[in-house]
Amino acid sequence: MPSLDTTFAALADPTRRAILARLAAGEASVNELADPFSMSQPAISKHLKVLERAGLISRGRDAQRRPARLEAAPLADANAWLETYREYWTESFEALDRLLARTKPTTTSRRRPIRRS
Amino acid sequence: MPSLDTTFAALADPTRRAILARLAAGEASVNELADPFSMSQPAISKHLKVLERAGLISRGRDAQRRPARLEAAPLADANAWLETYREYWTESFEALDRLLARTKPTTTSRRRPIRRS
Repeated sequence: MPSLDTTFAALADPTRRAILARLAAGEASVNELADPFSMSQPAISKHLKVLERAGLISRGRDAQRRPARLEAAPLADANAWLETYREYWTESFEALDRLLARTKPTTTSRRRPIRRS
Repeated sequence: MPSLDTTFAALADPTRRAILARLAAGEASVNELADPFSMSQPAISKHLKVLERAGLISRGRDAQRRPARLEAAPLADANAWLETYREYWTESFEALDRLLARTKPTTTSRRRPIRRS
Protein backbone atom coordinates (compact mmCIF):
# COMPACT_ATOMS: atom_id res chain seq x y z
CA MET A 1 0.00 0.00 0.00
CA PRO A 2 1.69 3.26 -1.02
CA SER A 3 1.66 5.89 1.72
CA LEU A 4 1.56 9.68 1.59
CA ASP A 5 5.26 9.56 2.58
CA THR A 6 6.32 7.65 -0.54
CA THR A 7 3.88 9.55 -2.79
CA PHE A 8 5.11 13.01 -1.74
CA ALA A 9 8.78 11.85 -1.83
CA ALA A 10 8.30 10.51 -5.38
CA LEU A 11 6.71 13.82 -6.46
CA ALA A 12 9.59 15.91 -5.02
CA ASP A 13 11.60 15.60 -8.25
CA PRO A 14 11.04 17.55 -11.50
CA THR A 15 12.03 14.63 -13.78
CA ARG A 16 9.62 12.26 -12.04
CA ARG A 17 6.81 14.83 -12.31
CA ALA A 18 7.64 15.29 -16.01
CA ILE A 19 7.57 11.50 -16.53
CA LEU A 20 4.09 11.37 -14.98
CA ALA A 21 2.99 14.25 -17.26
CA ARG A 22 4.32 12.30 -20.28
CA LEU A 23 2.56 9.09 -19.15
CA ALA A 24 -0.72 11.01 -18.76
CA ALA A 25 -0.67 11.14 -22.59
CA GLY A 26 -0.27 7.33 -22.80
CA GLU A 27 2.03 4.50 -21.73
CA ALA A 28 5.69 4.55 -22.80
CA SER A 29 8.76 2.29 -22.63
CA VAL A 30 12.07 3.30 -21.00
CA ASN A 31 13.44 3.87 -24.53
CA GLU A 32 10.55 6.15 -25.45
CA LEU A 33 11.00 8.10 -22.20
CA ALA A 34 14.81 8.40 -22.34
CA ASP A 35 14.80 10.15 -25.71
CA PRO A 36 12.75 13.35 -25.03
CA PHE A 37 14.26 13.67 -21.54
CA SER A 38 17.84 13.49 -22.90
CA MET A 39 18.63 11.05 -20.10
CA SER A 40 20.30 7.67 -20.08
CA GLN A 41 18.10 4.60 -19.83
CA PRO A 42 19.56 3.64 -16.40
CA ALA A 43 18.72 7.13 -15.08
CA ILE A 44 15.14 6.85 -16.39
CA SER A 45 14.87 3.29 -14.99
CA LYS A 46 15.91 4.54 -11.56
CA HIS A 47 13.16 7.20 -11.60
CA LEU A 48 10.62 4.62 -12.82
CA LYS A 49 11.54 2.35 -9.89
CA VAL A 50 10.81 5.17 -7.41
CA LEU A 51 7.49 5.89 -9.15
CA GLU A 52 6.61 2.17 -9.20
CA ARG A 53 7.38 1.72 -5.48
CA ALA A 54 5.11 4.72 -4.82
CA GLY A 55 2.34 3.03 -6.84
CA LEU A 56 2.30 5.98 -9.26
CA ILE A 57 3.05 3.80 -12.28
CA SER A 58 2.69 0.15 -13.23
CA ARG A 59 4.85 -1.71 -15.76
CA GLY A 60 3.46 -3.79 -18.64
CA ARG A 61 4.16 -7.52 -18.98
CA ASP A 62 5.80 -7.27 -22.41
CA ALA A 63 9.32 -8.38 -21.37
CA GLN A 64 10.98 -6.32 -24.11
CA ARG A 65 9.26 -2.97 -23.62
CA ARG A 66 7.82 -3.15 -20.10
CA PRO A 67 5.76 -0.03 -20.88
CA ALA A 68 5.13 2.29 -17.93
CA ARG A 69 1.57 3.41 -17.28
CA LEU A 70 0.27 6.17 -15.02
CA GLU A 71 -1.57 4.96 -11.88
CA ALA A 72 -3.35 7.99 -10.50
CA ALA A 73 -4.88 6.61 -7.25
CA PRO A 74 -2.00 7.79 -4.97
CA LEU A 75 -2.38 11.27 -6.49
CA ALA A 76 -6.01 11.23 -5.35
CA ASP A 77 -4.88 10.44 -1.78
CA ALA A 78 -2.32 13.27 -1.85
CA ASN A 79 -4.96 15.60 -3.24
CA ALA A 80 -7.42 14.62 -0.49
CA TRP A 81 -4.80 15.42 2.16
CA LEU A 82 -4.09 18.85 0.61
CA GLU A 83 -7.81 19.60 0.24
CA THR A 84 -8.17 19.65 4.03
CA TYR A 85 -6.11 22.88 3.96
CA ARG A 86 -8.13 24.57 1.20
CA GLU A 87 -9.82 27.00 3.62
CA TYR A 88 -6.39 28.18 4.81
CA TRP A 89 -4.97 29.06 1.40
CA THR A 90 -8.28 30.60 0.29
CA GLU A 91 -8.15 32.70 3.45
CA SER A 92 -4.55 33.83 2.85
CA PHE A 93 -5.27 34.72 -0.79
CA GLU A 94 -8.25 36.79 0.33
CA ALA A 95 -6.09 38.53 2.94
CA LEU A 96 -3.51 39.27 0.21
CA ASP A 97 -6.24 40.67 -2.04
CA ARG A 98 -7.41 42.96 0.77
CA LEU A 99 -3.83 44.08 1.42
CA LEU A 100 -3.22 44.80 -2.28
CA ALA A 101 -6.49 46.74 -2.50
CA ARG A 102 -5.41 48.90 0.45
CA THR A 103 -1.87 49.56 -0.84
CA LYS A 104 -2.84 50.17 -4.49
CA PRO A 105 -1.31 53.49 -5.68
CA THR A 106 -4.03 56.06 -6.34
CA THR A 107 -1.73 58.16 -8.55
CA THR A 108 -2.38 56.15 -11.72
CA SER A 109 -5.12 58.47 -12.99
CA ARG A 110 -2.89 61.49 -12.47
CA ARG A 111 -0.07 60.09 -14.66
CA ARG A 112 0.70 62.27 -17.71
CA PRO A 113 -0.18 60.72 -21.06
CA ILE A 114 2.85 59.67 -23.13
CA ARG A 115 3.31 62.04 -26.09
CA ARG A 116 4.49 60.39 -29.30
CA SER A 117 6.81 62.64 -31.30
CA MET B 1 10.31 31.27 -3.91
CA PRO B 2 9.46 27.76 -2.65
CA SER B 3 9.21 25.22 -5.46
CA LEU B 4 7.11 22.10 -5.87
CA ASP B 5 10.31 20.13 -5.15
CA THR B 6 10.77 21.60 -1.67
CA THR B 7 7.02 21.55 -0.94
CA PHE B 8 6.57 17.85 -1.79
CA ALA B 9 9.85 16.94 -0.01
CA ALA B 10 8.68 18.75 3.13
CA LEU B 11 5.33 16.93 3.01
CA ALA B 12 6.99 13.49 2.69
CA ASP B 13 7.26 13.10 6.46
CA PRO B 14 4.45 12.17 8.88
CA THR B 15 5.74 14.40 11.72
CA ARG B 16 5.92 17.44 9.46
CA ARG B 17 2.38 16.77 8.17
CA ALA B 18 1.20 16.41 11.78
CA ILE B 19 2.89 19.71 12.71
CA LEU B 20 1.03 21.44 9.85
CA ALA B 21 -2.23 19.88 11.06
CA ARG B 22 -1.52 21.21 14.57
CA LEU B 23 -0.69 24.69 13.22
CA ALA B 24 -3.94 24.75 11.25
CA ALA B 25 -5.58 25.10 14.68
CA GLY B 26 -3.40 28.13 15.52
CA GLU B 27 0.24 29.16 15.92
CA ALA B 28 2.47 27.35 18.41
CA SER B 29 5.98 27.62 19.84
CA VAL B 30 8.59 24.83 19.66
CA ASN B 31 7.80 24.08 23.33
CA GLU B 32 4.10 23.80 22.65
CA LEU B 33 4.79 21.50 19.68
CA ALA B 34 7.40 19.27 21.37
CA ASP B 35 5.06 18.21 24.15
CA PRO B 36 2.16 16.54 22.28
CA PHE B 37 4.57 15.01 19.73
CA SER B 38 6.74 13.48 22.50
CA MET B 39 9.81 14.75 20.64
CA SER B 40 12.81 16.73 21.77
CA GLN B 41 12.89 20.44 21.00
CA PRO B 42 15.92 20.05 18.67
CA ALA B 43 14.03 17.39 16.68
CA ILE B 44 10.98 19.66 16.36
CA SER B 45 13.24 22.62 15.45
CA LYS B 46 14.79 20.58 12.65
CA HIS B 47 11.36 19.80 11.21
CA LEU B 48 10.31 23.45 11.53
CA LYS B 49 13.42 24.51 9.57
CA VAL B 50 12.46 22.20 6.70
CA LEU B 51 8.89 23.55 6.77
CA GLU B 52 10.15 27.16 6.89
CA ARG B 53 12.53 26.65 3.95
CA ALA B 54 9.58 25.23 2.00
CA GLY B 55 7.55 28.34 2.87
CA LEU B 56 4.95 26.19 4.64
CA ILE B 57 5.37 28.02 7.96
CA SER B 58 6.61 31.42 9.09
CA ARG B 59 8.11 32.19 12.52
CA GLY B 60 6.94 34.99 14.77
CA ARG B 61 9.24 37.83 15.88
CA ASP B 62 8.85 37.17 19.61
CA ALA B 63 12.49 36.14 20.31
CA GLN B 64 11.46 33.88 23.20
CA ARG B 65 8.65 31.91 21.61
CA ARG B 66 9.17 32.38 17.86
CA PRO B 67 5.69 30.92 17.30
CA ALA B 68 5.28 28.93 14.08
CA ARG B 69 2.33 29.77 11.86
CA LEU B 70 0.90 27.82 8.91
CA GLU B 71 1.50 29.41 5.49
CA ALA B 72 -0.82 27.60 3.10
CA ALA B 73 0.14 29.15 -0.28
CA PRO B 74 2.63 26.37 -1.25
CA LEU B 75 -0.10 23.82 -0.48
CA ALA B 76 -2.28 25.61 -3.05
CA ASP B 77 0.49 25.22 -5.67
CA ALA B 78 0.91 21.53 -4.87
CA ASN B 79 -2.87 21.11 -5.05
CA ALA B 80 -3.00 22.87 -8.44
CA TRP B 81 -0.36 20.48 -9.80
CA LEU B 82 -2.28 17.43 -8.53
CA GLU B 83 -5.58 18.77 -9.87
CA THR B 84 -4.26 18.42 -13.46
CA TYR B 85 -4.45 14.63 -12.91
CA ARG B 86 -7.97 14.59 -11.53
CA GLU B 87 -9.49 13.12 -14.71
CA TYR B 88 -7.04 10.18 -14.47
CA TRP B 89 -7.90 9.16 -10.94
CA THR B 90 -11.62 9.69 -11.55
CA GLU B 91 -11.26 7.43 -14.60
CA SER B 92 -9.42 4.72 -12.68
CA PHE B 93 -11.99 4.77 -9.84
CA GLU B 94 -14.79 4.41 -12.40
CA ALA B 95 -12.94 1.51 -14.06
CA LEU B 96 -12.60 -0.14 -10.61
CA ASP B 97 -16.32 0.37 -9.97
CA ARG B 98 -17.16 -1.30 -13.29
CA LEU B 99 -14.80 -4.19 -12.49
CA LEU B 100 -16.33 -4.65 -9.03
CA ALA B 101 -19.84 -4.55 -10.50
CA ARG B 102 -18.89 -7.31 -13.00
CA THR B 103 -17.17 -9.54 -10.44
CA LYS B 104 -19.78 -9.11 -7.69
CA PRO B 105 -20.92 -12.54 -6.48
CA THR B 106 -24.53 -13.12 -7.56
CA THR B 107 -25.07 -15.72 -4.84
CA THR B 108 -25.90 -13.12 -2.17
CA SER B 109 -29.64 -13.34 -2.72
CA ARG B 110 -29.54 -17.13 -2.51
CA ARG B 111 -27.87 -17.09 0.90
CA ARG B 112 -29.93 -18.80 3.56
CA PRO B 113 -31.34 -16.50 6.21
CA ILE B 114 -29.69 -16.85 9.61
CA ARG B 115 -32.02 -18.54 12.05
CA ARG B 116 -31.87 -17.25 15.55
CA SER B 117 -32.35 -20.02 18.06
